[in-house]
Amino acid sequence: MESGRKKIEWVSNFMPLLNYLKKEYKGVFNSTKIGMAIHLEAKTAYLAITLKELGADVFVTGCNPLSTQDDVAAALSEYGITVHAKRTHDEKIYFNNLNKVLDHEPELILDDGADLSVILHTERTELLKNVKGISEETTTGVRRLLNLQEKGLLKVPVIAVNNAKMKHFFDNRYGTGQSTWDSIMRNTNTLIAGKNVVVAGYGWCGRGIAMRAKGLGANVIVTEVDPIKAIEALMDGFNVMKMSEAAKIADIVVTSTGVKDVVKYEDILNMKNGVILANAGHFNVEIPIEKIEKNAEKIFEARENVKGYIINGKKIFVIGEGRLVNLAAGDGHPIEIMDLSFALQTLSLIYIHKNYKNLENKVYQYPEELDEKVATLKLKSLGIEIDKLSEEQREYLKGY
Amino acid sequence: MESGRKKIEWVSNFMPLLNYLKKEYKGVFNSTKIGMAIHLEAKTAYLAITLKELGADVFVTGCNPLSTQDDVAAALSEYGITVHAKRTHDEKIYFNNLNKVLDHEPELILDDGADLSVILHTERTELLKNVKGISEETTTGVRRLLNLQEKGLLKVPVIAVNNAKMKHFFDNRYGTGQSTWDSIMRNTNTLIAGKNVVVAGYGWCGRGIAMRAKGLGANVIVTEVDPIKAIEALMDGFNVMKMSEAAKIADIVVTSTGVKDVVKYEDILNMKNGVILANAGHFNVEIPIEKIEKNAEKIFEARENVKGYIINGKKIFVIGEGRLVNLAAGDGHPIEIMDLSFALQTLSLIYIHKNYKNLENKVYQYPEELDEKVATLKLKSLGIEIDKLSEEQREYLKGY
Amino acid sequence: MESGRKKIEWVSNFMPLLNYLKKEYKGVFNSTKIGMAIHLEAKTAYLAITLKELGADVFVTGCNPLSTQDDVAAALSEYGITVHAKRTHDEKIYFNNLNKVLDHEPELILDDGADLSVILHTERTELLKNVKGISEETTTGVRRLLNLQEKGLLKVPVIAVNNAKMKHFFDNRYGTGQSTWDSIMRNTNTLIAGKNVVVAGYGWCGRGIAMRAKGLGANVIVTEVDPIKAIEALMDGFNVMKMSEAAKIADIVVTSTGVKDVVKYEDILNMKNGVILANAGHFNVEIPIEKIEKNAEKIFEARENVKGYIINGKKIFVIGEGRLVNLAAGDGHPIEIMDLSFALQTLSLIYIHKNYKNLENKVYQYPEELDEKVATLKLKSLGIEIDKLSEEQREYLKGY
Amino acid sequence: MESGRKKIEWVSNFMPLLNYLKKEYKGVFNSTKIGMAIHLEAKTAYLAITLKELGADVFVTGCNPLSTQDDVAAALSEYGITVHAKRTHDEKIYFNNLNKVLDHEPELILDDGADLSVILHTERTELLKNVKGISEETTTGVRRLLNLQEKGLLKVPVIAVNNAKMKHFFDNRYGTGQSTWDSIMRNTNTLIAGKNVVVAGYGWCGRGIAMRAKGLGANVIVTEVDPIKAIEALMDGFNVMKMSEAAKIADIVVTSTGVKDVVKYEDILNMKNGVILANAGHFNVEIPIEKIEKNAEKIFEARENVKGYIINGKKIFVIGEGRLVNLAAGDGHPIEIMDLSFALQTLSLIYIHKNYKNLENKVYQYPEELDEKVATLKLKSLGIEIDKLSEEQREYLKGY
Repeated sequence: MESGRKKIEWVSNFMPLLNYLKKEYKGVFNSTKIGMAIHLEAKTAYLAITLKELGADVFVTGCNPLSTQDDVAAALSEYGITVHAKRTHDEKIYFNNLNKVLDHEPELILDDGADLSVILHTERTELLKNVKGISEETTTGVRRLLNLQEKGLLKVPVIAVNNAKMKHFFDNRYGTGQSTWDSIMRNTNTLIAGKNVVVAGYGWCGRGIAMRAKGLGANVIVTEVDPIKAIEALMDGFNVMKMSEAAKIADIVVTSTGVKDVVKYEDILNMKNGVILANAGHFNVEIPIEKIEKNAEKIFEARENVKGYIINGKKIFVIGEGRLVNLAAGDGHPIEIMDLSFALQTLSLIYIHKNYKNLENKVYQYPEELDEKVATLKLKSLGIEIDKLSEEQREYLKGY
Repeated sequence: MESGRKKIEWVSNFMPLLNYLKKEYKGVFNSTKIGMAIHLEAKTAYLAITLKELGADVFVTGCNPLSTQDDVAAALSEYGITVHAKRTHDEKIYFNNLNKVLDHEPELILDDGADLSVILHTERTELLKNVKGISEETTTGVRRLLNLQEKGLLKVPVIAVNNAKMKHFFDNRYGTGQSTWDSIMRNTNTLIAGKNVVVAGYGWCGRGIAMRAKGLGANVIVTEVDPIKAIEALMDGFNVMKMSEAAKIADIVVTSTGVKDVVKYEDILNMKNGVILANAGHFNVEIPIEKIEKNAEKIFEARENVKGYIINGKKIFVIGEGRLVNLAAGDGHPIEIMDLSFALQTLSLIYIHKNYKNLENKVYQYPEELDEKVATLKLKSLGIEIDKLSEEQREYLKGY
Repeated sequence: MESGRKKIEWVSNFMPLLNYLKKEYKGVFNSTKIGMAIHLEAKTAYLAITLKELGADVFVTGCNPLSTQDDVAAALSEYGITVHAKRTHDEKIYFNNLNKVLDHEPELILDDGADLSVILHTERTELLKNVKGISEETTTGVRRLLNLQEKGLLKVPVIAVNNAKMKHFFDNRYGTGQSTWDSIMRNTNTLIAGKNVVVAGYGWCGRGIAMRAKGLGANVIVTEVDPIKAIEALMDGFNVMKMSEAAKIADIVVTSTGVKDVVKYEDILNMKNGVILANAGHFNVEIPIEKIEKNAEKIFEARENVKGYIINGKKIFVIGEGRLVNLAAGDGHPIEIMDLSFALQTLSLIYIHKNYKNLENKVYQYPEELDEKVATLKLKSLGIEIDKLSEEQREYLKGY
Repeated sequence: MESGRKKIEWVSNFMPLLNYLKKEYKGVFNSTKIGMAIHLEAKTAYLAITLKELGADVFVTGCNPLSTQDDVAAALSEYGITVHAKRTHDEKIYFNNLNKVLDHEPELILDDGADLSVILHTERTELLKNVKGISEETTTGVRRLLNLQEKGLLKVPVIAVNNAKMKHFFDNRYGTGQSTWDSIMRNTNTLIAGKNVVVAGYGWCGRGIAMRAKGLGANVIVTEVDPIKAIEALMDGFNVMKMSEAAKIADIVVTSTGVKDVVKYEDILNMKNGVILANAGHFNVEIPIEKIEKNAEKIFEARENVKGYIINGKKIFVIGEGRLVNLAAGDGHPIEIMDLSFALQTLSLIYIHKNYKNLENKVYQYPEELDEKVATLKLKSLGIEIDKLSEEQREYLKGY
């Protein structure tokens, strides 16, 4: 509890936007009931506290059975927030807790992955009438809700926080970029400079990972299936080749493609002794962990968070079981990145709270003006002023 | 002529895609008449030659009175291409030449800026019946044609080459990025490392310019009006401030915003003695040249392509009269970048040639499969192989 | 013990040079007694094991009361090495253990900081007759031994491992550069990109720290007292200013100057709320910790390894008490960097062992051929071949 | 003349140190006669003018038959400087001019390459009695004078400007780094991003060239004969391999080793069609031009400053005949870099002028306090202030 409180206080130092919103919108929620499903750790806890201070009654549960930090959960209760969350391997307990949050009859839902929203729409439909809207921040969650919408089952308005520019431009590039290498360095103590680092996928995450690997002195090799992205990688100064070739010279492999089996088991057979594998994609499907586990001659704990496998007499190391390396074996995104995302979420909830009567039961893109507002607040928090278009310049642009 | 031929031969060494397409589509145009309006220099000349070798009858004029290189024009005639182009300050001659190309009754139009297309649609409408379609490669040209379309005046299908990914991702970032600094360095012989370089605008061009300035050792300052782009610039490691502040410490200022007066005359009054100004945006409106010319105490030619002004006793240097610095005072984009763009154009003409009967009279986005084809050909020309999604992986992606 | 062994096994995977030397020089020491004083953790433990496998009888103690990891010490005993080391705050125990190693009458000394060597030359001079020579790897240790030499007190040959190129070029730039940021990131979870990072000192360490900060997306500001280094920093693209100015805008300050009070208490009063301070220099004198502790309105543990201070109502955070941040709050240099340093040390001991009869009692520069040997072995371990000068080329060079 | 004067005026804008010294030391030379041998172009002309304004009688000749720009020479005469220099292929004229400068019985010599000094010591020894000292700025010149010294033939004091930190740290890295790429880009108009750029040699020049190639988006490959430098290159993120391997994949090769035949003719046979070769080392011996010329099936002028060769049916392009690419096919170092070097030279002449009576007839290292003075003046010209060690800090450093 003491440790949980300390963690929350630490992150509060680096969340200027939530701190600002707490003041600007003080009391806005006026006892509205908000149900939240989140990875319950210090940063999300501070989001819950923020919503509480904005006047909401807040009910929190986890969005993944294993991601709840119990000391933070305990501390959160002390802030007057109702917490139904516990780190557990028991999925029943997990779903039970989701339902307990729904039992409070929330009016607004803040979801991460859409488990809460899907239960609401399938098993607890009697509660839908209370709900003004949902704010969902993940790609996966947005997809699930779009699926509901396509089938005509979506019964409340949804705002796709994930689609905000201030979310996906920043979270993926600067967040994943840094936290992936933070995790790999702390868990291995190996040198990055001069290493052959293979980055699978040159989407926003892959760009961030490759950029930071270069910044740490690595020789970066990118693999891609999209020829256009492959040429971008090339012109950004990276080597580009097939995974089957890259695998042979890799010292470290990081996957972030969103696709399964991006590293094939055959690739692993060709890797050098001592290679290190990590996944920065959402699901643990990019590295063929099951085949590795099945075929390894020996399996051992090599270091905290690092498993070693002997395959064909060579050692293969996998960080964090092939799960999202920055979360499974680190502290997740840097605090300031989450401050941006949480400001987007908070504003989206306020938006729904104020406008729900005019909203349809569909998935909305993130409102542009709120996206810009978050950017503007961030600049303000940094004391940075930028230019504004003059009336004349606006006119000029129309005349194109 | 000799010099023109030599220039053309030089660029042909670095245009693998045009060289490839010449073989793959040999004869495809089968005496189709193509009218082209282009900046007539070695790279575009080689595009004309390529179309000729693909079987077309080619008629060429300039797309800007001053951008025609007469030695290249002369050489081009020798390749069996009809050229109506001359470097001139006389706009009448320029428009006369555009009309001369139309006199040949072209069936396909390759346009750059849409002068040819607009004349066709306004003054020479009797020729529209021959025209199967237009391929237009600039932002400006696409906008003009969209305006025609909105007013119901567009009478032929148009393909917006500018909108291809292989165009705007590459041309702006890697093309403008390099050629802007090539031009500034060759025209000033000044050191970039350690300089305060102000880049106005953080769009694709501005990113390229900032990235390369950093790569040359500068301390880069970005100005923006869009708060989201401002934060991206910041997280890319650049300083961000208002132009009025940046102007005071600038050693070199490069504009690339597409807006007029991005540097204000008041900013210039605050600049340091010896500051160097250049514009990388399309039009010469970003630096307030007129006010500078009007108010300068003294104006002098400081170096070839560089004009000096004494204002308030301080020297201000402007490269290339504030026109697009890489073209007005350099050789334009690197050859390989234009090879990509020209491959896109060639494929779009073939596409129209084959499919015009099924096309409507509207502006089409660039066909994705051709965009990818160009990327794939580029990789092939480099001997680079990339991965392909397996059937299983495709299935996995659908199941998200 | 189990955990200690696991740690040692982990590092052994990334120490190709020690692994190679174990084979090449198997048995070379032929029961020679080696006394070692080291920071006893996994990497140094593996050095001790290597010496053991080269035939030596090895006696190990710590070189700092607090840097011994007891689980590693316990594991080391199992490898047949005599260990007199314990993590302790009691300096008596520490010096007792140094003496216990000397009691074994070592013939070769491997020292880190020169405590063992100084005791030998001052309090245990009767043992000097057994000693063939000393290998010392730190700047501090080399200075102390040079002082002994100047006073005519040095009685055995010494090899200054610290002065090898493969040591100070790599250890400082790539080792400190990476491990400083590894430590700051893991201990704060804050974003580096877009931050104002002030690096005090642009020596080899400072260069490494600045280079990696830039690589992580920071806006880097360097402070220096040497005008030449200041201009180098500038031309490397960094901002350069006085600490009193830099302090006002700093988000993170890292010192690495080797000088005390490089950050003054007055600077701290001008810093922003929430600033983070870390020291990467050898001693904890660069940040004025005592004055901070004395004057703070409140002191609190902000996070593991991070102390918070309230000064003038603003929060100041200090990582690792102002001690060497990569060691005090991290795992020290990356393994491969230490592999280079330890290979240099091992070769220097073999060199003394073979040549001591011809060596004088003075501090020797590191032998160039061994320096190159380590580089050559490193390249070999990576499978990299480089060019060789031909006879003709050698002749050409002489003819200059 | 008009063009020569304009060139000189241009460079004067970017030479703050010479401009400063002109004022600080006005009249110091008090009609002392200075003989100069230099590459006579705008930047060196401004050095001559500076010395003139400091009160000297200045006599100028070239230091290479081909590097004199005749318009600058003509303009220089108008400033009251005696010029004996002409661009010529006739070596007799060249040596005649050197002698003409000596005929004026100079008291101070400013030399570049030591031709003037060597003639003085061998053929014109009767003039030695007038000479107070020599300032020599090149590596080659310093070596020749050291050879004279070793043979007991040196009869005047020499200051080795080349050895100043403000010379070789900056000139090579930032000067050669930028100007090499400026030259390659302007002479080829090819894209650097995504290219395989092979840099032969990782000395100060090679580092600058590699660093800037990376900054322009290239995939950089370094070749070396020194294993330590090879590992530095590796840890700086570059690929390292043998030239015979690098040659096969190179798009652009730049040599800067100081050794002959660093590219072998056999390597050229293995290169790709269209490869571009350039040399940034002092002499045109690094690329085997003679063998290429002899064996080529066809030789042609490919572009201004670029020669094409057909060898085994493949095209090989060489810029500037394999001579120092930034000078032979460009404008040499950026102006500000030369300002640093010339300030060093000017100060060394003043130093000799004032202290010659106390100097021995030997080659002196560059005086440290003048080196620091130049750095300090440069910072001042930029308006940058840096820290100073306090008395306490100085004490602390002694106590180490």
